[in-house]
Amino acid sequence: MVDVAREAGVALRTVSRVVNGDATVGPAFASRVQQAIDRLGYQPDERARQLRSGRTGTIGAAVRHIADAHPVLRAVDEEAREAGLTVVAMSTEDDEVREREAVMSMCRRRMDGIIIEPIADGHQYLQPEIDSGLAVVAFDRPATGVEVDTVLSDNRGGIRQAFEHLAAHGHRRIGYIGDDERIYTGRERAIAFRDCLNAAGVGVEGMVHPGPIETARIGAALETLRGGPDPATAIVTGNFSTTVAVIRALGSGYGGTALVGFDDFGLADLLRPALTVVAQGDTEIGRTAIELFRSRLAEPDRPVRTVTVSTTLVARGSGEIRP
Amino acid sequence: MVDVAREAGVALRTVSRVVNGDATVGPAFASRVQQAIDRLGYQPDERARQLRSGRTGTIGAAVRHIADAHPVLRAVDEEAREAGLTVVAMSTEDDEVREREAVMSMCRRRMDGIIIEPIADGHQYLQPEIDSGLAVVAFDRPATGVEVDTVLSDNRGGIRQAFEHLAAHGHRRIGYIGDDERIYTGRERAIAFRDCLNAAGVGVEGMVHPGPIETARIGAALETLRGGPDPATAIVTGNFSTTVAVIRALGSGYGGTALVGFDDFGLADLLRPALTVVAQGDTEIGRTAIELFRSRLAEPDRPVRTVTVSTTLVARGSGEIRP
Repeated sequence: MVDVAREAGVALRTVSRVVNGDATVGPAFASRVQQAIDRLGYQPDERARQLRSGRTGTIGAAVRHIADAHPVLRAVDEEAREAGLTVVAMSTEDDEVREREAVMSMCRRRMDGIIIEPIADGHQYLQPEIDSGLAVVAFDRPATGVEVDTVLSDNRGGIRQAFEHLAAHGHRRIGYIGDDERIYTGRERAIAFRDCLNAAGVGVEGMVHPGPIETARIGAALETLRGGPDPATAIVTGNFSTTVAVIRALGSGYGGTALVGFDDFGLADLLRPALTVVAQGDTEIGRTAIELFRSRLAEPDRPVRTVTVSTTLVARGSGEIRP
Repeated sequence: MVDVAREAGVALRTVSRVVNGDATVGPAFASRVQQAIDRLGYQPDERARQLRSGRTGTIGAAVRHIADAHPVLRAVDEEAREAGLTVVAMSTEDDEVREREAVMSMCRRRMDGIIIEPIADGHQYLQPEIDSGLAVVAFDRPATGVEVDTVLSDNRGGIRQAFEHLAAHGHRRIGYIGDDERIYTGRERAIAFRDCLNAAGVGVEGMVHPGPIETARIGAALETLRGGPDPATAIVTGNFSTTVAVIRALGSGYGGTALVGFDDFGLADLLRPALTVVAQGDTEIGRTAIELFRSRLAEPDRPVRTVTVSTTLVARGSGEIRP
């Protein structure tokens, strides 16, 4: 910066003001400084700048796997860019230790804040960071042990949409296979499905199968659902991975079973039958996360908000098969 | 750190050595310092540390979209973790301006290096960074205007595998629809396909269709290929997006056309017919990128290497349909 000041023939303080985007610098001075910067190839050291200024313009995104398709992260990335913010992403691997490492590494890099798909059971470790001004927004699942802005899907409403759609197409024996109930979304969706069965006055016994997404476990659940004297004629699957595993297990034409999957995906329309899904409002979730993030930075002490985003049933064929 | 030293009853220098992982600190001192750190909740400021030390243990990954499924990034992330490195990812949006912004933002954050899927035509802007010790590895496409370690797929070999597989199943009229030739991989694959047609002694005219991945353009290419007195009985698609667009355009059962897609994907086996693909060695590419990265950090002046990773034909049904 000393070199730039000498080259431009201005005070060091003027260079500093230009570099830091101070709009009160006169245009002639600003232009001389910018030309000197260009000539010398000067590059401000982001870390040194961050040590002095409060904000970095950067959001850390802690997601399950940075290498997986992630429609909410896409929306976060796009919305952030429009707001002049940069998203850097790290993987948590859905592992509590990894999550904490990734989040604390972001905190040490003094991101303005963190958008997190929380896995760990206790997020108390975030409290000191939040107290010192870190904006934290949780999505998909709530954080626990700490009060943060949160964006969730209407998991229960989505399951009701799937159930009622199948019931409206004449199904009475509707089964559910989903994710482990230790995971928030798996729990919410299984609870909602039991509520649907109870509300419809049909038996819950043997119809609801949450658990790990493993071929053997899912095969056994399918056998229970489709065996016996009064087999299920329709199935609701609780998330993308379960949907794919169930389709693989059912084989060609899904074995004639009606199917509605929770979560939409790019190739769902190319399957035969094309897959009817409950689509989450990924774009809306991402947009809301960025809104909450920005409003938290603007007003650090405002009360915490939880926003629930509704789901949409997309009928494509597999959910309209009659019993 | 002063507080930690006071709490532990040791010199400030000792705290500094423990925080920086200096193994020569006696275990009793190290334990006292660690306990004081835990009691006080002290957290080293990564930026201040980085200003003093050379390395950050962090790799910046500049990829097309951080929110897209990216099997090479998955391998990079996993290999990096095993090597004790952390990957942070940013999107380039396949846009030259965005790429440069993302890369320079990573440089300003003093990553140890960058793994990049290059889009921009001139990467001369990286030279000063490389000269000052930044490790750069390009993958999928070469960087231009700058000499860096590079990992590529055997694009030409992969196209030959697809062509020869279809020829072995009796096809003589084989067409190609792929990505724009302005993109390195699109160019390589189109060139390779023309070479295959020439080597087989069949006409090239009207059989090779590189271009933007747009529904209308791909529809017109399909019409050219499948119309006329001597229509194509088999098609090779040049990348994932083209494959999906062609399958959508061909409709149910791919309209009976034999198809081999360049790039494998998770649901290819669930399509009907199941899709035969040329799979890139994503894991091997990611592993090689991390190897090149680490060896570059260890030996900054070694000659630049380009590694080409071979492809594999995975036969699943669509490529074994006879004319």
